[in-house]
Amino acid sequence: MAAALVLRGSASWLRRQRRVCAGSVAMVSSRAMASKTAVGFIGLGNMGNPMAKNLVKHGYPVIAYDVFPEACKEFQDLGSQVTDSPADVADKADRIITMLPSNANAIEVYVGSNGILKKVKKGSLLIDSSTIDPAVSKDLAKEAEKMGAVFMDAPVSGGVGAARAGNLTFMVGGVEQEFDAAKELLTCMGSNVVYCGEVGTGQAAKICNNMLLAISMIGTAEAMNLGIRLGLDPKLLAKILNMSSGRCWSSDTYNPVPGVMDGVPSANNYQGGFGTTLMAKDLGLAQVSATNTKTPVLLGSLAHQVYRVMCAKGYSQKDFSSVFQFLREEETL
Amino acid sequence: MAAALVLRGSASWLRRQRRVCAGSVAMVSSRAMASKTAVGFIGLGNMGNPMAKNLVKHGYPVIAYDVFPEACKEFQDLGSQVTDSPADVADKADRIITMLPSNANAIEVYVGSNGILKKVKKGSLLIDSSTIDPAVSKDLAKEAEKMGAVFMDAPVSGGVGAARAGNLTFMVGGVEQEFDAAKELLTCMGSNVVYCGEVGTGQAAKICNNMLLAISMIGTAEAMNLGIRLGLDPKLLAKILNMSSGRCWSSDTYNPVPGVMDGVPSANNYQGGFGTTLMAKDLGLAQVSATNTKTPVLLGSLAHQVYRVMCAKGYSQKDFSSVFQFLREEETL
Amino acid sequence: MAAALVLRGSASWLRRQRRVCAGSVAMVSSRAMASKTAVGFIGLGNMGNPMAKNLVKHGYPVIAYDVFPEACKEFQDLGSQVTDSPADVADKADRIITMLPSNANAIEVYVGSNGILKKVKKGSLLIDSSTIDPAVSKDLAKEAEKMGAVFMDAPVSGGVGAARAGNLTFMVGGVEQEFDAAKELLTCMGSNVVYCGEVGTGQAAKICNNMLLAISMIGTAEAMNLGIRLGLDPKLLAKILNMSSGRCWSSDTYNPVPGVMDGVPSANNYQGGFGTTLMAKDLGLAQVSATNTKTPVLLGSLAHQVYRVMCAKGYSQKDFSSVFQFLREEETL
Amino acid sequence: MAAALVLRGSASWLRRQRRVCAGSVAMVSSRAMASKTAVGFIGLGNMGNPMAKNLVKHGYPVIAYDVFPEACKEFQDLGSQVTDSPADVADKADRIITMLPSNANAIEVYVGSNGILKKVKKGSLLIDSSTIDPAVSKDLAKEAEKMGAVFMDAPVSGGVGAARAGNLTFMVGGVEQEFDAAKELLTCMGSNVVYCGEVGTGQAAKICNNMLLAISMIGTAEAMNLGIRLGLDPKLLAKILNMSSGRCWSSDTYNPVPGVMDGVPSANNYQGGFGTTLMAKDLGLAQVSATNTKTPVLLGSLAHQVYRVMCAKGYSQKDFSSVFQFLREEETL
Repeated sequence: MAAALVLRGSASWLRRQRRVCAGSVAMVSSRAMASKTAVGFIGLGNMGNPMAKNLVKHGYPVIAYDVFPEACKEFQDLGSQVTDSPADVADKADRIITMLPSNANAIEVYVGSNGILKKVKKGSLLIDSSTIDPAVSKDLAKEAEKMGAVFMDAPVSGGVGAARAGNLTFMVGGVEQEFDAAKELLTCMGSNVVYCGEVGTGQAAKICNNMLLAISMIGTAEAMNLGIRLGLDPKLLAKILNMSSGRCWSSDTYNPVPGVMDGVPSANNYQGGFGTTLMAKDLGLAQVSATNTKTPVLLGSLAHQVYRVMCAKGYSQKDFSSVFQFLREEETL
Repeated sequence: MAAALVLRGSASWLRRQRRVCAGSVAMVSSRAMASKTAVGFIGLGNMGNPMAKNLVKHGYPVIAYDVFPEACKEFQDLGSQVTDSPADVADKADRIITMLPSNANAIEVYVGSNGILKKVKKGSLLIDSSTIDPAVSKDLAKEAEKMGAVFMDAPVSGGVGAARAGNLTFMVGGVEQEFDAAKELLTCMGSNVVYCGEVGTGQAAKICNNMLLAISMIGTAEAMNLGIRLGLDPKLLAKILNMSSGRCWSSDTYNPVPGVMDGVPSANNYQGGFGTTLMAKDLGLAQVSATNTKTPVLLGSLAHQVYRVMCAKGYSQKDFSSVFQFLREEETL
Repeated sequence: MAAALVLRGSASWLRRQRRVCAGSVAMVSSRAMASKTAVGFIGLGNMGNPMAKNLVKHGYPVIAYDVFPEACKEFQDLGSQVTDSPADVADKADRIITMLPSNANAIEVYVGSNGILKKVKKGSLLIDSSTIDPAVSKDLAKEAEKMGAVFMDAPVSGGVGAARAGNLTFMVGGVEQEFDAAKELLTCMGSNVVYCGEVGTGQAAKICNNMLLAISMIGTAEAMNLGIRLGLDPKLLAKILNMSSGRCWSSDTYNPVPGVMDGVPSANNYQGGFGTTLMAKDLGLAQVSATNTKTPVLLGSLAHQVYRVMCAKGYSQKDFSSVFQFLREEETL
Repeated sequence: MAAALVLRGSASWLRRQRRVCAGSVAMVSSRAMASKTAVGFIGLGNMGNPMAKNLVKHGYPVIAYDVFPEACKEFQDLGSQVTDSPADVADKADRIITMLPSNANAIEVYVGSNGILKKVKKGSLLIDSSTIDPAVSKDLAKEAEKMGAVFMDAPVSGGVGAARAGNLTFMVGGVEQEFDAAKELLTCMGSNVVYCGEVGTGQAAKICNNMLLAISMIGTAEAMNLGIRLGLDPKLLAKILNMSSGRCWSSDTYNPVPGVMDGVPSANNYQGGFGTTLMAKDLGLAQVSATNTKTPVLLGSLAHQVYRVMCAKGYSQKDFSSVFQFLREEETL
C-alpha cells in the first residue's frame, strides 16, 4: 500500500508503451527455450536452501546469493556460483527466483541500491516465492516492467519437508503468457503449480487459504475442547465432526488434540509443522490486505489476535495446532 | 444450569438406590421387546411432523400431542390417537419421543404441571430430540430417573428435507444399555444413529459440531470475499482452498458464494437450508455451555455475535451461508 | 432462564390476586417501622462478613447463617444468634439480607429444601445482594411473592475495602414502595443506594456497568500498550487520553500501567482490587443475559473471553487491570 | 512500513552527519523569528479550509495549494497566493502545513514528482496535520532531513466545528527544539497544542486515543442496549454508569442513546459529529501499527471490524455513536 504509493510517486510507468511489453514477451520466449541455462536464486534459508538444491538436481546451474554468506557456502561446494549482491545475480542470470522472509526484504532485494532491478536484463523472468503483501507484489511487478522484465508472485504452501521432497504447491500470479516459462522451473521444486490470475493473486490465494486455515484450526480446537469438557471422548467427537458439517482439514487431517491422530504435530508435542509465529505473520498480511480493501474479516482478525497472543505466551515455535493446548489450560488459583 | 439447581434444590435423588436403576433396566428390556406397541410423540412442528409420520409408516401406532391442536389434526386423520397433555401421552405409551423448540418447552413438557413425569410409567423410555442445553438434558434425566424412567437426549442433524426422507443423523446420549432400544425407533426416522456417551453428550456433540460449522462458514465467507476483492476468480479460489489446508465442508460442499456450486442455498438466493436464526440459537447454547464450563471459545462467541447481528439485519430466515452476502456489501455514501 | 421456566412449570402464581400483594405491602409497612428488630444475614464470606458487622455496629441484632459454620463463629462472639439453616433465619427474622457467590447458591438458599421460603413469614423483606442472573432474581421474587414476602435484588459495587468502610454502592431492583424499607438497612452498609426499577434491574445495572468497565479496561490496556510500543511515554499518553475523548474511569482513576498512578493495583503488582476471576464471572452473567434477550454484545463477549483466557494463564487472583500485563508480554523464541 | 523500506532502499541517510541536523536547527531559529512571513498550506478540504482561514485571520500570508483547483478559489479571493504544485509552495514558503486524507496523499505531496521535497529550502519547517500511519510520518521526516528540512507530525482532534472555531487539539511529534516554532502557527488554529515526543508520536497519540474511543463507544452502546432490554430506563442507566466505574467520555459527554443527552449527535439522528467512515479509517491505522509492532489489540481489531461492517450497512456518514442504532435493531422475520 504505502509502498505502492512511494514507488508510484517517483515514477512514470503509466507512460510506458505497449511496445515494451510486447518486446519483453518476445525476449522471454527465446529465453524460455534456452533451458538449463543458469537460474539465479536469492534467499537460501530454511525453505530456499532445499528449493535451490532441487533446481541443481534438475540440472540447472544456480547463481546464488544470500545476505548471510554462510548460507551460500553449501552451494559453493555444490559448484554453484556465489555472488555479492542481488544486482550481480541479475547480471549473470535472466531467470531469478527469490525466497525472502518479509515485505522489507523483498523490497530491498528488488529495488534496493544493490537490488535486482539495478542490473536486470530486458526480458528477464523474476519469480518471487516469498509470502508478502500482494500490494507489494504488484508494485514490484510495475517496477520490473519499467526495466523490461517480468515479475511473477509464486508463494508456496507446504513446509520444509515439502521443499526437500520437491512437492510444494506454488500459487502463481502474473502475465498468463509467462506462466509456462515459470512452471518449467517451479515443477522442479513443487508437484502442484496453479495459475491464479494477474500479479498479486498468488499471494492473495495463499493468504486467503491461510486465514481460513487459522480460523478453522482455532474453531476445531475450541469445539474439541468444549466437547471434552462436556464429557465427550475426543476420538469419538473427532469422528462425529468428520462425518458432519463441522468437518475440515484441521479436524480430519491435522487434528490438534493429542491422541486423536498419529503423524501430526499434536502427536509430537506440537513440534515440526507450521509455526505459530509464521501463521501470525500470514494473518497480519491478510489483515493488511483486508484493511486496504475495506473488507470485513471479523473472525480473520480475531484469529490474528489469538496467534499474536500465543506468540507472546511461549508458543511461537510450536506448530499452530498448539492453539488447542493454549485453550485447554484451566483456571488455577 | 440454573434449571439444574432448581431441580436439585427441591429433590433428593442422591439418596436413590442402585436398585431403582437396575429395576428400570429390567423393565425397559421387556418393554423393548414389545415392538410395534404405541409410541408417544410430542411436538409436531416442522421437524416433528415428518418424523412422527415416518414412525407411522414403520407401523408404530402414534399417540400424539402438540400445544397447537391444529398440528395434531393431520395425525388424527392418519388414525393416530391425539391427547390433551404430555401427561396423557405418558399415561398411554411407555416410549415417547419429544421434538421441541427450546429449553423452556422441554422443561414444561417433562416437568410441568401436566408434564410427562406426572404420569410416566416405570421403565418408560423418553427420547428428547430437541436441541437444548446439555445441562437441562442432564436435569431432566435425573428427574426421569426419580420416577423410574429412562431419559435420553437425541438431537438431530439434517433439516426438514432429511426429516421427510427419514435420513436424519441422531446423536444419542444416555445409559448405554438403552441405546439399542432407542435405536430401534430412531432408525425409522434417521439413517445414522450415533452413540455419544452419557446423557447430555448427544447435545454436546451437536452444539460442538454446529459451533465449528458456524466458524468455518463465516471463515469461508471472509476468505472468499477477501480473495474476490484481491482479484481472484471465485470458482478458482474455491478450487484452490479445496485442494489445500483451508478445505472444509463449507468450502467444498456448501460454498456460500453464488455461482460456485449448484444445488446449495447460495445458488438459490439463500432460500432453504438451515436458517440464520436457528444457527444463532445453537450458538447461544454453545455459549452457555462454554460459560458454565469456563471454556474459552473466542471464535465461537464471535460467530454467535455475527449471527445475532445478522438476525437483526433481515437475514434470520435465510440460510446461514448468507453470511457471505452480509459481508460482501460495500460502503455506500 | 432455565430456572424461571422450572419454577414456572410447577407453579401457579399467575392466579395470585392483587389482594395478597396489597396485604404484603401493609405488613411491610408495620415491619419497617419496627426498626432495630433482628435482621437475618446469610452468607458471611469476604463481603458478607464486613457487611453484617456494619449492621451490628448500627445496632441491629443479627441472625446469622453460613454454610461454613466457622464463618459464623465471629458473629457468635459478637453476640449474634447463629442458626442451622436459611429456613431457621426466616423463622426468626422478617428482614433478611443474603450475600452469596452464585446463581446456584442463591437458588439453594431461597428455594432449597431448607431454604428461606420454607419458613418465611408473610410480609418479610428479602434483600439479595449477590451478583446473579437477573432472570434468577425475577424467579426468586415470584416465588417469594407466592409466600407473601417481598424480594429485592440489591447487588453492590465496591470491594472488600468498601464493604468494611461501609461505603458500598447498592443498585436496587424491586417494588418501589419497599425501597425505603430496604434503604434503611442498606445505608448501614453503603453510602450510595440507587433505585433502579422493577426486580432484576439492580442486577441488570450492575452487569451492564461491569461489562462496560471490562471493555474500557481492556481497551485502555490495549491503547496504552500500543502507544508505548510506538514510542510514547506512558504518563504522557495517559494525560493525553484523559483530556481527550478516550478518557474513562480505567484511564483516569484506575490506570492499568505500572508507574502511571499511585494507590491503584497496577502500582502494587496487581494485588488487591477486583479479581480477574470475579470479572470473568460477571461477564459470564452479562453474556447469558445478552443471549437470553438476543442482544448483540460483540465487545462484551470478547472481553469475557479475554478474562476467561487470563484466568487459565495465572491471572485469576490478580486485579482485572492486570490485562495490561497479560497483553504487554512480547514474543519469545 | 512498506513505505519506510522503499524509502530506505534507495537512500543513505544513515551516513548523514550531526552537522546537518545542527545546521537545520540554526536556520530554523532564524526562520522562526521571522513571523508573519508567508506560510504554505496544502490540502484545503473540510478541515484544511477553516484551518488555513484561521492562519489568514492571524495575519499570515498563505501560499495555497490543493489538488482540486476550485478548493483554492476562495483563498484567491481572500488575497492568498495560489500555486500549481506542492513543490511551488515549498519554493515560496519555508513554513508549510499539510492536511491530507491518506498515507497515499501525504506521500505524493511530500516525495512525489512535484512534491514539497523537490524544492524545499534548507531549514524549512514542514508540519503535517494529516492522520496517517506513524511509520509513514517517520519516513517522511527522514526524507525531509536529507534535504535539510524539519518534518513534524501534528494530527488534530476535534472536527470541522473545532477547526472553524480555532480550538482544535494538536498532538505534535518531532524534534523538541522545533516545537515552539510549530506551536506559534498551530495556536492560530487550535487551543491545545501538546508535545508528544519524537516524530510519529503525534500520530501514535491520536490513533491510540481514537482506538480507545471506538472501543468505549461500542462498549457504551452495548451496555446501554443490554440494560434497556433488561428493563432499565436509559437516562437512569446512564446516570448509574456515570457515577460508577463504567463511566467514560462516550457515556458522560457523548452518550449514544437518543433522549439521554441534548446537543450530541444521538439527539439529532446521528448527524454531524465524527463520521463512521473516518473512525473506520483511524482504526485501520491503529490496526496496521499494531500489526507492525506485533501488539495484540483484541478489542481494537474487533472495533475496527464493527465500524467496517457499519460502513457497508449505510452508516458511513452518520456519527460513530450510531453504533447504538446499529446494535439495537431487533430480529425481524
